[in-house]
Amino acid sequence: MSDPDAMRALFNPRSIALVGATDKSGWSVNTFNNLRAGGFPGPVHLVNPRAEVVHGQRAYPSLAAVPGPVDLAYVMVPTEAVLPVLRVGAKLGIRRYVVLTAGFAETGAQGREREAELAEFARRDGLTVLGPNGNGYVNASAHVTPYGLPIPGPLAAGPVGVVLQSGALASSILAFAQARDIGISLLTSMGNEMAVSVTDVVEYLVDDPATRAIALFLESVRHPAEFARVVRRATAAGKPVVALKIGSSPLASSTAQAHTGALVGDDGVIDAVFRRLGVVRVRSLEDLIVTAGLLGEVGPLPGRRLGVVTPSGGASEIIADRAEDEGLALPPFAPETAARLKEILPEFATVANPLDVTGYVVVDRTLLGRALEIVADDPGIDTVMLLHDLPRVPPADATLMYALFEATAARIRNSPRPVVVVGNVLTDVTEFGRTVRRRTDFPHVVGGIEHGMSAIGAAVRWSPAEPVGGPPAVATPVISGEPIGVWAEHRAAALLADNGVPVVPAELAADSGAAVQAAEKFGYPVVLKAVADGLAHKSDLNGVRLDLSSADEVRRADREVRAALRARGATGIGTLVQPQRTGGVELLVGVVRDPAWGLTLAVGLGGIWVEVLRDSALRLLPVDRDEVRGALAELRGAPLLRGARGVEPADLDALADVIVGVGRLAEGLGDRLESLEINPLWVSGSRVEALDALVTWR
Amino acid sequence: MSDPDAMRALFNPRSIALVGATDKSGWSVNTFNNLRAGGFPGPVHLVNPRAEVVHGQRAYPSLAAVPGPVDLAYVMVPTEAVLPVLRVGAKLGIRRYVVLTAGFAETGAQGREREAELAEFARRDGLTVLGPNGNGYVNASAHVTPYGLPIPGPLAAGPVGVVLQSGALASSILAFAQARDIGISLLTSMGNEMAVSVTDVVEYLVDDPATRAIALFLESVRHPAEFARVVRRATAAGKPVVALKIGSSPLASSTAQAHTGALVGDDGVIDAVFRRLGVVRVRSLEDLIVTAGLLGEVGPLPGRRLGVVTPSGGASEIIADRAEDEGLALPPFAPETAARLKEILPEFATVANPLDVTGYVVVDRTLLGRALEIVADDPGIDTVMLLHDLPRVPPADATLMYALFEATAARIRNSPRPVVVVGNVLTDVTEFGRTVRRRTDFPHVVGGIEHGMSAIGAAVRWSPAEPVGGPPAVATPVISGEPIGVWAEHRAAALLADNGVPVVPAELAADSGAAVQAAEKFGYPVVLKAVADGLAHKSDLNGVRLDLSSADEVRRADREVRAALRARGATGIGTLVQPQRTGGVELLVGVVRDPAWGLTLAVGLGGIWVEVLRDSALRLLPVDRDEVRGALAELRGAPLLRGARGVEPADLDALADVIVGVGRLAEGLGDRLESLEINPLWVSGSRVEALDALVTWR
Repeated sequence: MSDPDAMRALFNPRSIALVGATDKSGWSVNTFNNLRAGGFPGPVHLVNPRAEVVHGQRAYPSLAAVPGPVDLAYVMVPTEAVLPVLRVGAKLGIRRYVVLTAGFAETGAQGREREAELAEFARRDGLTVLGPNGNGYVNASAHVTPYGLPIPGPLAAGPVGVVLQSGALASSILAFAQARDIGISLLTSMGNEMAVSVTDVVEYLVDDPATRAIALFLESVRHPAEFARVVRRATAAGKPVVALKIGSSPLASSTAQAHTGALVGDDGVIDAVFRRLGVVRVRSLEDLIVTAGLLGEVGPLPGRRLGVVTPSGGASEIIADRAEDEGLALPPFAPETAARLKEILPEFATVANPLDVTGYVVVDRTLLGRALEIVADDPGIDTVMLLHDLPRVPPADATLMYALFEATAARIRNSPRPVVVVGNVLTDVTEFGRTVRRRTDFPHVVGGIEHGMSAIGAAVRWSPAEPVGGPPAVATPVISGEPIGVWAEHRAAALLADNGVPVVPAELAADSGAAVQAAEKFGYPVVLKAVADGLAHKSDLNGVRLDLSSADEVRRADREVRAALRARGATGIGTLVQPQRTGGVELLVGVVRDPAWGLTLAVGLGGIWVEVLRDSALRLLPVDRDEVRGALAELRGAPLLRGARGVEPADLDALADVIVGVGRLAEGLGDRLESLEINPLWVSGSRVEALDALVTWR
Repeated sequence: MSDPDAMRALFNPRSIALVGATDKSGWSVNTFNNLRAGGFPGPVHLVNPRAEVVHGQRAYPSLAAVPGPVDLAYVMVPTEAVLPVLRVGAKLGIRRYVVLTAGFAETGAQGREREAELAEFARRDGLTVLGPNGNGYVNASAHVTPYGLPIPGPLAAGPVGVVLQSGALASSILAFAQARDIGISLLTSMGNEMAVSVTDVVEYLVDDPATRAIALFLESVRHPAEFARVVRRATAAGKPVVALKIGSSPLASSTAQAHTGALVGDDGVIDAVFRRLGVVRVRSLEDLIVTAGLLGEVGPLPGRRLGVVTPSGGASEIIADRAEDEGLALPPFAPETAARLKEILPEFATVANPLDVTGYVVVDRTLLGRALEIVADDPGIDTVMLLHDLPRVPPADATLMYALFEATAARIRNSPRPVVVVGNVLTDVTEFGRTVRRRTDFPHVVGGIEHGMSAIGAAVRWSPAEPVGGPPAVATPVISGEPIGVWAEHRAAALLADNGVPVVPAELAADSGAAVQAAEKFGYPVVLKAVADGLAHKSDLNGVRLDLSSADEVRRADREVRAALRARGATGIGTLVQPQRTGGVELLVGVVRDPAWGLTLAVGLGGIWVEVLRDSALRLLPVDRDEVRGALAELRGAPLLRGARGVEPADLDALADVIVGVGRLAEGLGDRLESLEINPLWVSGSRVEALDALVTWR
């Protein structure tokens, strides 16, 4: 779909025609004013068949009457007139359009038809159309602002590209970025994504030299594979993608028999996808822009060890709390750093990280800057955080203030480590604050401790490294039988065992005598389980008997289970005898197919952990050992794997390798597989065995 | 400590002397400018022994030379000159002081001595002193602003009283409140709290008619009982208290033997205290002021059912997510509401709560207001939330804008239900936004969805109801033996049983024969436990034997346990035999003494729940049945009590009553008790029994 030349042309026209321009429409007024105020250097032609003058400028009755070439037509005509406008435009050789007009797919069946017709025409004639039902875009870095709602000024051009699946919120985002003095390269309000999609615009931003970070507001990801591809490109280009994703998409329904289905909510899958792709997920509009602003203006940060310099004990404690939330470390300063700090700080100050240089800054206004310089030299930290507000209003002596900001700015520039400047609270950067920044070359100031610490956490976690992959799928898995319906118990176990996943030994017993024979072979205690066609939740009919310690007990249990199955009219009745595994930890390992994103792995501890606590971690396949170990470490119940409460610690590599093998098998089974669940997967030390499994074929 | 007349006089002087006023000090310049710009109506006298003119005004060499009375002396002299100034002032009859000067208790031992001397003098002479080492206060409602740092303008006078244990953050709070157009009644920067404490100021605010909500920034609560008293007064007066509490205080150390000690962190106790007192706890400076602003400007909200009106689908989904976080309900609209909405909305709009009236608002700008009017009539909602920004810059036609805002403001005023207006993102209210608000009598606009939803949640949860109490303590508990050291097992069990807490039957066996005899009496299976002097964690030496099903098994276990105890050189060796309880759920119920706040109850599910997950809920004693049920419902493992995984559902009233009894006993034991822990407390249906307990005396 994406054509880089077409996207470049769409966002960088040298001439624009506003079709349907009229003084009566707020959209028309806004768009015209935006282009003028934004400094668009080329001609803006107005087209209106019923007015000679619009917005105080001559108007033309049709696109055909416009003198000179039109690189972009911005279309605000009534719904039914949109296609005719495109027809005329196409004939004139106009290839790029923004359609603001609504009344298409968003309005129901008739609108969808209308949009399909428009799409078909555009596709056939090779037109690039943004919208319909979108407000256009703001290319701040190129001064091209065909955008139908007011643009708050002064909007700084800068490193953050923004793509939104929401019209109304685009204005809030623009206002917020403007308020925070965060520079925007391009902001696009997508509308219905009839032709140009979010991924097309992201791809443009990857190639756009003005863009250094990308912020997305997503209601749904319409083209998963494309999305994954362009995000990988962005990552490889060192451009972090930050996303606020709302809304939900239904999960495949046929996994209801397995627990995994309940664990893998659509939102959980998005988390797993974003983790895999390295997308920073945020939960608020403020975090979206504050985080993208930091990533764009300062860039990703090298490590989690933060050295913090503040003029306030209270703020230091808030920062320490938030650092913990974000997994950031605040290591003690090196002895030399501490000694140098002691030399400059008042006697009553405490040298600690975070550093509170105390209210003495009011007396010695260079104190904060000098402390920063010392902390920036500390070999034990990766990044310096300086708590420092921009002024809101001019002081009596602005000259002194400029000098101080210049000195601090120079220290920040000369720092051997990245310095992130964060303000105390989230307020606008005022006009005077902007003036100070520009005049003193002061860096970006992140908006407040609360959102700033989230942004720093994200900037530390983001990595341009190649996303984790995994070993290849099992090439030709052994499948004994026809892969349809649900395979429980022994059939599922055989599938695992045949393909290299360790399974507890088991024997299918035709009668009670055979059950006893099997038990004697395995040694006591054993487990005996009900087997019947299509039987999934055995525990419902007391079909799992544990702790059987003698031949008598096995015989009795076997008879009872068979009787219970017969009473239910079950077919294919049998029992399965296994040695009973004691000690160790039981896990649930499941793979389900997400309709958009494909095979998703869920791991959790068994029993209450998944059933009551829903304590699970999700990953997209393929996974390697490290990624599985990371998923296991995320579990709240992880201490049990490490040996809490007297449990033998699990050999986490051995466990992870088995889980990687499950993933490889699931991938090898390919399109035939709907879900595969091992519950429990038992681990004790380095012994790992599937004790029970369930496979659902598509 | 608190003297209402003194506090009123401190914060409402008719004349002020700035002692140590000098053009060379930023503090002096700021304070003088603040008083002038703030419109202080009385005289501001300047005292400086070495200058005749300061800040362009005549200065006097000493307080004695000042003509006319001085209601408040604002002291900025060098540290060693503070006491002499107070001596002179006291002789002149000046009774109220703000001491900005630092160099006291915050600087170490010598400073502490200096401060003690100052405090003693002030106490003897009946002086009211705010500080030292504090920047003073801003009484915006009375135009009295003796405050040493710049006050951002225009600062609106209004309903929020702010008390801060931080000087540096006071400026951030002022800037943020100003930015958000949130009116402040009084802001006080406490300094060292030598004499006037946070609780004194809160008490003043409770009586201050201008104050309707109170915001606190706390590093530590210095006078717990006083704090509880004044917060209760505030609550009774309908003035919510919102607090950002940082820092930590160490917990009593001697509870290390019990698990409860680890569960009851100091931060957890603060949560329990705030819950008991009805203090709204927040975690960021933004939430502190946004929440207090909503509570002050709009007030507490009547119920959790929210009707939401927005012009944006994206925002609606963000709101829905955040409503869930905050425990707010978004019920479907009543059929009549839906029908009326359908009449006014465009055909393609979906009638749902949250309501997205669609981008059609740009065409019909009355749509949002009309939808609001309809939703406000819905009988199934308690509060209306309207997503509506203030404008940032003047539009081309401000007249139309004023008319629209006036119309919406009238609809909000006339709404039968409270209407909370929330903006999309957290930005400043601009100068034009303020103008629009004032001219159209538009209500307070809460700063952004993210922080606004937290504020709405808090405003719904806050209640002026009398805090929960509980039944009286056990008046004269039966204590068999001398209450010293640690009582484990049978002694602890006897204490419980003697005082009405149900305990599993048990017999202390002198030898293996007696153990078997006891087992035969109870019936099998039984549990056998090691008993020895000072033995707490029996499981460490395999001293708890479960599932003993025959006389032989009991005898063998008894011998092994005794041998193990002897091998360790234990004294007071014995075994305890109990019937084994199966099924049901095991809980931990503990009471520990917090050094500041007194007896604190912790409840949690036993085993992994507390040991691995630290899944517990805390409450201050006394508690009643409802409060205990609330605590139990908070547990992540609560589904087990309600019968998850085939467990018999617990009779929660019966369980809560036993826990209330434990609390009553702990309170009855009074100062002698350090901690009391039942682990496990077993519940199965309506059967509740303590299976093991540990009591630590002080």
